[in-house]
Amino acid sequence: MATPIPTTNDFTQFFEDVVPPESFDEKKAQMDSFIKSQSECKRKIVLITSGGTTVPLESRTVRFIDNFSIGTRGATSAEYFLKQGYAVLFLHRQRSLQPFCQRIDRNVLDDLHVSTDGSDTVTVNPESLQRLLPVVRDYHRFKDTGVICQLEFTTLTEYLLLLRAASMSLRVCGPRAMLYLAAAVSDFYVPHGQMPEHKIQSSEGALQLTLEMTPKMLKPLVKEWVPQAFIVSFKLETNPSLLMEKARGALRRYQHQMVIANILETRKREIFIVTLNSEEEIRLSEADIQSGREIEEPLIQKLSEFHSNLLSSQPAT
Amino acid sequence: MATPIPTTNDFTQFFEDVVPPESFDEKKAQMDSFIKSQSECKRKIVLITSGGTTVPLESRTVRFIDNFSIGTRGATSAEYFLKQGYAVLFLHRQRSLQPFCQRIDRNVLDDLHVSTDGSDTVTVNPESLQRLLPVVRDYHRFKDTGVICQLEFTTLTEYLLLLRAASMSLRVCGPRAMLYLAAAVSDFYVPHGQMPEHKIQSSEGALQLTLEMTPKMLKPLVKEWVPQAFIVSFKLETNPSLLMEKARGALRRYQHQMVIANILETRKREIFIVTLNSEEEIRLSEADIQSGREIEEPLIQKLSEFHSNLLSSQPAT
Repeated sequence: MATPIPTTNDFTQFFEDVVPPESFDEKKAQMDSFIKSQSECKRKIVLITSGGTTVPLESRTVRFIDNFSIGTRGATSAEYFLKQGYAVLFLHRQRSLQPFCQRIDRNVLDDLHVSTDGSDTVTVNPESLQRLLPVVRDYHRFKDTGVICQLEFTTLTEYLLLLRAASMSLRVCGPRAMLYLAAAVSDFYVPHGQMPEHKIQSSEGALQLTLEMTPKMLKPLVKEWVPQAFIVSFKLETNPSLLMEKARGALRRYQHQMVIANILETRKREIFIVTLNSEEEIRLSEADIQSGREIEEPLIQKLSEFHSNLLSSQPAT
Repeated sequence: MATPIPTTNDFTQFFEDVVPPESFDEKKAQMDSFIKSQSECKRKIVLITSGGTTVPLESRTVRFIDNFSIGTRGATSAEYFLKQGYAVLFLHRQRSLQPFCQRIDRNVLDDLHVSTDGSDTVTVNPESLQRLLPVVRDYHRFKDTGVICQLEFTTLTEYLLLLRAASMSLRVCGPRAMLYLAAAVSDFYVPHGQMPEHKIQSSEGALQLTLEMTPKMLKPLVKEWVPQAFIVSFKLETNPSLLMEKARGALRRYQHQMVIANILETRKREIFIVTLNSEEEIRLSEADIQSGREIEEPLIQKLSEFHSNLLSSQPAT
């Protein structure tokens, strides 16, 4: 595959400066192999990024800056994409929520007991069964058919290296690829050369930190890495008055198809699907919330329809 | 209980400035009730703090500074303290590792299957049983006898409020209380009054952050909050040449009994038990590591012996 021609210098400089983690080549090979097999059977495929990225403050890292995200949006969306027939490449923060596994209580030991018939088997309690049975079934159904590939990242650098590699690899899928960029990516970072090796000592008094802006990767991603894909980015704000302006600004700047806009405090019951010339609200009613309905269900259904319409309006590949 | 007289102003100022989270009173009541019941039956009790604290950079927090720690030391130590007969008050970072639950793979769904006999039960796979059976047994043994109380924190502020409340409450246990302060507490923080309300905008260019030093809470803790307890603090460094000097410095400064000193990269196989006039190394051999032995097992055994010796040298309470 040809190396893309950079349009700006800052992201090329960023990639020139970084040292890929040891695991990078292995993860890249795993992604490439998954994408190739899904591409061969012409399945629609979505790259979901999920969870926050860390920005280490020391090379031997004790402290880091992190972004609020446990990966609920990404993990839940992955389940609905699978149910819509997509293959899912799930690129997630280490220890963030996983599709299906997120439905298991972290204290799963409360749901298990040693059988009392002397057989030394461990079984799910009858009172937890109704909740766990569909989860165990769904998990094995998708896992066993090989339509999901899960890969993890921790730092901003590792995330961006894997995002670039996945995007370039997804070119082979043409317009059947969707990118659903739900990860909470740090806007700021400490360049490698400016980082102290050892733990910053607290005896040195107040701590002054200067962070540089992370290069905007959506630009090369849309223009060069995977130009035929359907690209959905996210905008999370705490101040509602900035939200729409920032969503449209991103669409104009990066020329991609869609922004999902949401406010931190209401993100589980209200989101906006924003394109350059449309804006659609998805909102759960109080009754929806009470019944356990999740906003990702109507959202992913909309995106899947939108993607199908895009595909049917293009010449077949 | 009388309010302690402050010896320095910085920690009193810190507590005057903070706004306790809504859940604080409920958590405090839960701790008080647990400590009271354990004190009545004269059981040895240990407060274990575990996991990292966050330092929010915005009031409606999207970004924060965090400390590297998933809570392995704390969760593993809690298990060995329980096995040594201690009651355990486990004060841990939200979503960090928990005693016993940490032994369950995060992908526990791989260990479960729906039975094929049509009975719709969910059972642990035979090949996972050997690993999970003792975990399920131990968990229920300690949970069901009420000798463990688990409470969570997220921010530095919440941690310090709970630590102070737990310490003061533990006074009633006299020298039978141990404090095992394994949490990775941030040395720096952004004072409440200096924090922006909304998410910092990346369009504003490079990010300049100034953090102030966190007041050293060991000082009032040892002198005023819980003066009769056996107090063990931790020192984690990346630079071996600083380790012992910093451990002894802490003992001289705060006048507590013990520092567990360790280096980030070797912390799972080598630790030093440091007191003002002694230094003992605990190290796992290669054979120990291969057989799955954990360094917390000999460590907690030493601490338990040390604590028993201290208790038997004091007049009975």
